[in-house]
This record gives sequence, structure tokens and C-alpha cells, in this order.
Amino acid sequence: MDTRARPDISGRIGALRRKLAETGLDGYVVPRFDEHQGEYCAPHDNRLAFVTGFTGSAGVAIVMRDRAAIFVDGRYQVQVRDEVDLGTFTIEHFYDAPLKTWLRHNLRKGERVGFNAMLLPSTWDADCGRPVAEAGGVWTAVDGDLVDAIWTDQPEKPLGKITAFPVTYSGESVADKKRRIADMLEAEGADLLIEAQPDNIAWFLNVRGRDVAFNPMPQSFLIVDRSGRTEWLVDHRKLPNDLSDFELDDVAIAQPRQLLERVRAMAGGRTALIDPGFAPSATAHATRAAGGTVQLARSPITLAKMHKNETELAGFRECHRLDGAAWIRFFAWLERNAAERDASGKAVSELEAEDRILAYRQMDESFVEPSFRSISAADGHAAMCHYAATKETSAPIRRGGVYLLDSGGQYLTGTTDATRTTAIGPVGDEVRRAYTAVLKGLISMVTLKFPKGTFGHQLDAFARRPLWDLGLDYDHGTGHGVGHFLSVHEQPQRFDRRVNEIELTPGMVTTIEPGYYKAGAYGIRIENQVEVVDDGDGFFSFRSLTLVPIDMRLADVDLLTHAERQWVDTYHRRVVEEAEGLLDTESLAWLAERTAPVAG
Amino acid sequence: MDTRARPDISGRIGALRRKLAETGLDGYVVPRFDEHQGEYCAPHDNRLAFVTGFTGSAGVAIVMRDRAAIFVDGRYQVQVRDEVDLGTFTIEHFYDAPLKTWLRHNLRKGERVGFNAMLLPSTWDADCGRPVAEAGGVWTAVDGDLVDAIWTDQPEKPLGKITAFPVTYSGESVADKKRRIADMLEAEGADLLIEAQPDNIAWFLNVRGRDVAFNPMPQSFLIVDRSGRTEWLVDHRKLPNDLSDFELDDVAIAQPRQLLERVRAMAGGRTALIDPGFAPSATAHATRAAGGTVQLARSPITLAKMHKNETELAGFRECHRLDGAAWIRFFAWLERNAAERDASGKAVSELEAEDRILAYRQMDESFVEPSFRSISAADGHAAMCHYAATKETSAPIRRGGVYLLDSGGQYLTGTTDATRTTAIGPVGDEVRRAYTAVLKGLISMVTLKFPKGTFGHQLDAFARRPLWDLGLDYDHGTGHGVGHFLSVHEQPQRFDRRVNEIELTPGMVTTIEPGYYKAGAYGIRIENQVEVVDDGDGFFSFRSLTLVPIDMRLADVDLLTHAERQWVDTYHRRVVEEAEGLLDTESLAWLAERTAPVAG
Repeated sequence: MDTRARPDISGRIGALRRKLAETGLDGYVVPRFDEHQGEYCAPHDNRLAFVTGFTGSAGVAIVMRDRAAIFVDGRYQVQVRDEVDLGTFTIEHFYDAPLKTWLRHNLRKGERVGFNAMLLPSTWDADCGRPVAEAGGVWTAVDGDLVDAIWTDQPEKPLGKITAFPVTYSGESVADKKRRIADMLEAEGADLLIEAQPDNIAWFLNVRGRDVAFNPMPQSFLIVDRSGRTEWLVDHRKLPNDLSDFELDDVAIAQPRQLLERVRAMAGGRTALIDPGFAPSATAHATRAAGGTVQLARSPITLAKMHKNETELAGFRECHRLDGAAWIRFFAWLERNAAERDASGKAVSELEAEDRILAYRQMDESFVEPSFRSISAADGHAAMCHYAATKETSAPIRRGGVYLLDSGGQYLTGTTDATRTTAIGPVGDEVRRAYTAVLKGLISMVTLKFPKGTFGHQLDAFARRPLWDLGLDYDHGTGHGVGHFLSVHEQPQRFDRRVNEIELTPGMVTTIEPGYYKAGAYGIRIENQVEVVDDGDGFFSFRSLTLVPIDMRLADVDLLTHAERQWVDTYHRRVVEEAEGLLDTESLAWLAERTAPVAG
Repeated sequence: MDTRARPDISGRIGALRRKLAETGLDGYVVPRFDEHQGEYCAPHDNRLAFVTGFTGSAGVAIVMRDRAAIFVDGRYQVQVRDEVDLGTFTIEHFYDAPLKTWLRHNLRKGERVGFNAMLLPSTWDADCGRPVAEAGGVWTAVDGDLVDAIWTDQPEKPLGKITAFPVTYSGESVADKKRRIADMLEAEGADLLIEAQPDNIAWFLNVRGRDVAFNPMPQSFLIVDRSGRTEWLVDHRKLPNDLSDFELDDVAIAQPRQLLERVRAMAGGRTALIDPGFAPSATAHATRAAGGTVQLARSPITLAKMHKNETELAGFRECHRLDGAAWIRFFAWLERNAAERDASGKAVSELEAEDRILAYRQMDESFVEPSFRSISAADGHAAMCHYAATKETSAPIRRGGVYLLDSGGQYLTGTTDATRTTAIGPVGDEVRRAYTAVLKGLISMVTLKFPKGTFGHQLDAFARRPLWDLGLDYDHGTGHGVGHFLSVHEQPQRFDRRVNEIELTPGMVTTIEPGYYKAGAYGIRIENQVEVVDDGDGFFSFRSLTLVPIDMRLADVDLLTHAERQWVDTYHRRVVEEAEGLLDTESLAWLAERTAPVAG
């Protein structure tokens, strides 16, 4: 029996509905977004959990006076039914039956639906506004947030300390970045940029922060104009008194709550560039209200930041050396302990393993924090792509099982993200066949040479083909961009079946991570981070940043081509060379054994 | 010296400009489109050549009162400067600096630009109308065509005879097609379909025609409504008196010139589905004028026709057997003659070769005509992707050179399109290396197994990768759909770097045709037509329809994997099995030699 106190959801729904009546609304949208569209949100912003009881990491609800619905994606279809009162909420699919479709089919003529325009970006504003209008309803932004108004014990917004991120790490001064972004605004025909993405702002101002776990950047807003004039709307309590380490001399600082007031003051008669997927739609409304023109376009900072400069790339290479050593120590430890402890009934647990790799990363002082919650997953747990072990679920890593670790670190020099799959003792033919196909997919992708003008969706299938040959596939993207001591999932480039509009170009850093998952049984993924490098002949290729040995005991080497085996050996030689100086004797011995040549 | 009489372009331009003055216009758009957006246009429709002198197969001009421009693509940048008076026309790039951009930058405020809305489809109407409005001009459809009005000796519209295409070939009755299309209209929420694409209409009505070379279908229009009621707007002179072979009992027949009148009569208060890329924008204007609603969407006939039924597929397989035999006879003949005739100073010419493969195709009575103008190209000519030999250019096929033949046939049972590259005598290492890469690309693509939900742009790179590995590529798509005794280039599916929105699904027929071209030196292409087949496990794969041996003397077999060599041998065994019964002794002997196993 679950003894945790259930929150009084029906009381909250009642209070929210009374607010609807007070404000003349018939419904209200409750997203799990914050004002910055962050991947993780602070407790302050988890309005969705407060109103519905649903604790998953993504979703949206609509609460009407006499009905309500919650929209969650495929990962959460079971969990939502455990957590949410089915008498109050109907359950809908976030992608297959989204809010916009619900609005078109379920709204009565004349019903007024309110939303907080600081939380919904312009794409959502447009996608919902259209069907509401088609249904004869009214789609209207409200002042403030109705959930905040009834949330008496709402946690405060985070106040993580902000630190300067020196040019020795970032590689480009704020002054130079200002000039570049101003030029990009000019080229786009825009007068100013309204920016809300924490990683873009941290990159632009050479600062880092700690408002949200795993994401070393502060929540704030930024307005830059075509002359480079910059206003930073940030809670001053997060800044130290002494700003001498910062490059903020020419940056005006204001409070975040002044955002719309500042937009109105600056946007009149001018064209404001607003990222439709990330900036609050309230900024577009305020621009238009001030007589300005809204230009919806991808933020120029996103497009500048995606190419890492030489300092950032050197940092990436350095932190991957350190991270590789942590992985090697971890695996050497695991192999020394796992079988024996399993035999004695005290098997290593998923959580213990997660703690252990963290401890090895912490041995270097440039390590700051994990770059995401590790997926430390034994057997069937690894088939759940977003598994995170808890005290209740933490499973033993046992002989004969398959263990997957997807883990990364935030270093001052860069951000890491890698996955390896291993086993304690021999595995069966089915696992070996799938593991070999996943490995072949990784090698096929990593060894690509491709012409200028190529997009991620053109290459994605190279990672899948060895699985396709077996009638298998994986239901996630093949790779994502990685920030430089910023978000581990960074826009805009991707390897995916879905179309991605960003050309792959030198200086980009992305992951390549094919996998195979058998529900309830096992999960396999091998992930390397790579940089895109220029071959000098109009073609580009990838260079692995990740330096972690690949467990060849799970592979059927007979199924690898000679070229594939050579790639493994060459890669392992690099792993050894880069790690040698960083390891203890025991780990070195383990590494030598695990990187023995396979090409013969 | 060119002794052909140059047309009096300046007189024509003068006449057109007087027409502009008469009709109160400042400019007029002259496209090389016909009313059906055909790939080839009849002499009647070559208004662009009449007005500008430019004889290429694609382009558009704009003639203003005091200036004029012509827009042609990369293929024609040289030719256009030979043919067009540069004092009258500025030359622009069809894709890189298109008409719509010219209109935005070159129009004066208040200028009125006219166009024939029967020639421009809705995409062009919208793409040009917007910049004209932005420039402060007026974009206006005119009645009739101003070029036709000054073209005193304009050829008549073609009057090719129309024949019934029996269900024994088409595999589906008109009644069944009507029901299917009516259901698709219903699902789309449309009341009627206005159709102008000749291949779609021929497919729907089970007819064939001969208005334009290589395209065995009549020019006409069609209106189908949701109940299946069908009007065919076709010149009755093209039909025989006795229609008993046709399935036209429930089809009302009217004249093509009545199209807009019929649209106005039928569209009031209804929703008309109009393909924005193919149907005349005049039909959208007429629908709106009648109080109807325009729904711009891909024609449901395009989406039905793209899946070939079992009868059509059986026909494809059969005509490829016949076509393969013609290719084999051709190559056997070429090899018997080319070297010796070259030595004696009377080398086989490109045109002679083209005539020869035609003659071999004509040996079977189900062959109707070529499916496109053959590209019979020796050496440097083959590097021009759309080369067509003329009496002036027809080059000798010589020892030591490389010869490319891209050729296909229209058969009652289907449409073929294949390319092979061969050589008379040994070739150098560079050609062998490129040929081997092209062959590897073909094999990689043909042997793909891919999951349901895959699009052409996800697979295109498999055909390119072996070239990419060498720092090479080709500047054309990897494959196009093929009609069933219809257009050899058939919408909507494609293999291309560009995004294609159509899922690959069983029953589709497409080409796979990687190549490599070195300007002025040689061109290599190997092209097989394939059908998409269902593997039954949620995955699909390709099966070659083309049955023509691949010249392995040009390949470096050492660079092929064992699996690639096995594919070649298996393919060649099929070629031999299917062709055996159709060949003379000499051709059989040649075939045996050229298909000797390479896998060892």
C-alpha cells in the first residue's frame, strides 16, 4: 500500500474552476513548460503536477469548468493512469491526439479558453488558437497565471548562483558574440532579438548558473538589438556583488518581471525576431501591441552556438579524455566486483553503479555535475529508453544479464554523453546478434564521409541498416547535438528519421547512438559523441570524442567485416593512448585486456 | 555558319508589347508549360520558343513593356546565350534567381503583370502573386493567351487518336477506380476533383493516347465528384466513333474549352480538390468565383495510381523480360561491330546505336514507342545528363572510350527505363574506380530492407556512399517513379537528397540510378527499375524489374565485397533465365560470356 499522502487534487481543481468563473473563462491550459522551454523544470514550474498529480517530465492539461483532459506521450501512458483521477481527467496522447485536436472537437461555441502567454511559445499559441477559433471559441491570454494564483505553497523560483565563464573556456568574448549576432540580425532584416533560452543566453554572455539540475545555466531573458545593445533580464540575487570577472560592462541589467514592459518600450516601429518554438508568445503579443513587427525565426544564437570554436572543441576533447578514464575505472571496478558479489547474494545495484561512475568523474576538479540523470539499467530496465533507477526499482546487476549505462558529465571544458552495454558473463546468441548489429550501425555512421549540404535525416539510416537487415529497428533518434558545458541535448541539428533543416557542418558536436530494445528482456545501446570535421575536399566526416572501450565480448566478430574490425582496433588504440596517463595499474590491466585487437 | 533562318524575335516582342498596351498591362508571363504541366509540350504550346527563340525543354520568360528576362536552369545556361538576344532579354537562373525573386526586385509600383491562368498552376500563381503585391504591383489573370493572339501560324493542338486500355492490361475497371477516388474525396472532405494531368486521366478512364511523343496519353481534363459522377473534357475528334471498347458509359463528355464553364456550374457551394502543382490556377479562380471552396492538395488519383496492382506488376515484369532481350541483342551487336568498325574508320555513331536498340525493341508487337528520348552518349557527351544526340553532335563510339546508354520503352504491359555503361576495349583505372563505386551504390540500394514508414530521402545516400568515400558524388536524384504504360517519370515518390513526403510502400515502381560524371571526359550511370515488395515482417525491400547484364569488365572486382559479388551473380542468373527463350544463338553466347560468375 502506498502510504504517501495523496495531494488534494479535487480541491485544487475546484479552486482553479472558481478562478475560471471569476475571470470569465471556461477553460485554462496547464502545460509543464517553464518560461524558457527547459527540458527539466524547477519545482516552481511544475504546475501540471500540482493541478493533475501527474509527475512525468512532459505533458499538458486543459481544465474546463465541467471537464478536463491531460495529454502525455507514449512513455507515460501507464504512469498517468496510476497518478491521475480518471473521473476528473480523460487521458489523451500528446502526439497522436494532441490538445489542438481536442480543442477543435470538444469546444462548445462561445467557450473562452485562457492560457499563460509566458509559458506557451508562439507555435503553441498558433496551433491552439486556430482550432479554438474554428470551433467558435475564444483563445485568450490571461495576465499572470491562474495556477500560481491558487498554489499557496508554490516553491520559489530557483536562485542558483551565476558565475562568469571565462574566455579561456568559451573561446570568444561577449563583445565578439554581440557583433556576430548583430550582423545576423541585420542579415535577417530584424532590429532586435528577444531570447528566452537559458543555454543561448549563457553562451552569449559567457556565464553559467545552476537553477535546474544537469543544466549549468541561469534562467533569464535577453534582448539584443542590431547595434549590439544588450539588456539582460535576470534576478539580481543570482549575481555576485563583484561583477569584475564578468563581461557585462555594456550590458544593461533589469528584472525578469520587466520583460514585457521592456519589449513594449523597445519594439515600437521595429522588427523583433522571436523564436516560435522557445520564446514566450507573450513577447510576440507585446511586440505587436507596441506597434512592432514580429519575425518568427530560429534564434541566431542557436545558429551561432551550434558551431563550436577551437577552444570549445579542444575543451571537448580534453573532458572526453577525463570522462573516458572515469568510464574505464568504472568498468574495471564493475568487473572486479559484479560476478563475485552476485554469487554472494549482494549484487551491485543499478543505483550503486550510477553513484560509482559519478565518484570516478568527481576525481577531476573540472567536473561539475552529471549532464543528465544516468540510465543505469539492468536487463529489462534497459528496454525502457528513459529509465531512471529509484530505491524501489534499483535492480541487481547479475551474471548472465545485460547491463546498459548511459551517462555523462558537465565539465568546465565541455559536456559528455556516452552509452555502453556490457554483461557479467556470457550472453546468448540473440543478444550477440543484436549487439553486433548495433555496433555495425555505430561504425557505419561514425565512418561516414559526406558532402557539404547534407542533413541529418539523410544519414540516420546508416545507423539502422544492420538492424533493418535482421528485421529490427529502434524507436528513437540516432543522435542529438551537445552543448559546450550547457545542455546535453542541444538544438538544432539531429540525426533522425524526421526531417531536420540544419546542414551538418564542421564544428558541430553530436551523438551517434543506435540501439535495440526487447521489452521486458534487455536493452542495447552504443553511443559515441562525435565532432564534424572538414576533410578539405568539399566533404566532411566524423571524429569520435568519446573514448570508452566497446565491449567486444558481446559482439560476434565473425559478422564484422575486416574494415569494421580495423575500425574497432584503431578506436581502441586511441582510447588506450588517451587514457594511459590517467589510470591506476588495475584499470590499465583491465583496459589492455578489453582492447585486445580483433582484426587479427 | 548557321544558315537556318532566325525567327523574327524582335517583331514578335514588338507585337506582344503592343498587345500589352492594348490590354492595359505592363508585363506578361510566358512559360513553357502546357495546360497539363506535361514534361514534354506539343509545338502548339511552345510559346516560350516563339517569343524568345530559346528551344530548351524548360523555362519561363517575362516580357515587360521596356524590359524582359528569361529564366532557365543549369543545363541551359550556355544554350540560352546562343539562342536568345541578350539586348532584349536578361538571363536569369530558373532556381537560384527565379521569376518570383525578379518580380519582387524589378517591378515598379503600380505595374500590372498578366498571366494565362490556364498555363500556371496554383503554386506559381501564389509564388508570383505575393512578390508582385509586395512590390506594389498588380498580378492579374487575362482571358485567353496574349502569345496565341500574336502567333499567326501557331500549330494546332495535337489530335492524337485515343484508344481503350483494356482491364486485361490495367487490372482495374473504371467503375472500381471511380469508387476508390470518390471514397478518397470523401475522406478528404472534398466534393469534387478537378484533374488536368494526362497520366492521371488516362489511368482513371483506362484510355491511352498519343498527343505528345513518349507519353502515351491524351491531353484532356476531368471532373469527378464524390458520388463518382464523371465529366471528361476531351476533344471528340480524338475519339473513335465506336466507343464500345471503352468504359465510358457513365462518363459525360464535353469539350476542353468548356472546362471553366463546367467548373463554375459544378463548384458553387462545394469544395473542389485542386492539385496546386498541376491543375490550371484558372480552375481555382473559377471555383472561388462560383462561390465554391478550393482545397489545394495532391490529387487522389496520383496517390491511387502510385501503387501498381497485380496485373500492372505482372505486366511490368513481362515487358522487362522483352526489354532485357532487346538490350542484350543490342550489346551483342555493338560488341560484334564497334571495335572493327572503329578500326576501319566507320565507327558506330550515337544515333545509329539509338536506332538499333529501338529496332530490337520493335521486334515485339507489344512495344509501342520509346518511353523517352534515349541518351546515347559516348565519352564527354555522357557527362551531360540530358544529352540527346543530333546529326550535328552524334559522336563515334570508339575503342578506349566509355559509352552510356539510358533508354526505355513504352509497352502495352508497362514502361521501361534502364541505363548501362560499357566500353569498347579496356578503360583506365580512374574510370574503373568510379564505375565500381557506382555499381556498389546500386547494389547497396537495391539490397536494402527497410521498415514501413520510410521515405525516399532517407535511403538516397546509400546509393551515394561508395562515391562519397572517394570524395565524389552526382548532381541528380537517385530515382523516380515510373508509370504503367504512362509517363516514365511519374510522381509522387522519389529517391533524392530533397525531402519527399511519400512513404515507400509495396506496389511502387521506381528507378535506382547512381552515376558519376566528369565534364568533358566521361559519364557513368547504372540504372535498374525496381518494385517495392512486402517482406511480411513490417519491412519492405526492392526487387529488380530491369533484366540487363551489368558490364563487369569495367568494375574492379577486388573492390567488391563477397556479398556484392554474390548479388551480381544472382542477378545475372536471373537475367539469363528470363532472356534465354527470347534470344538468337549469337546473343546467347555473348550473354553467357558477359554474365560469367564473379564471386568465385
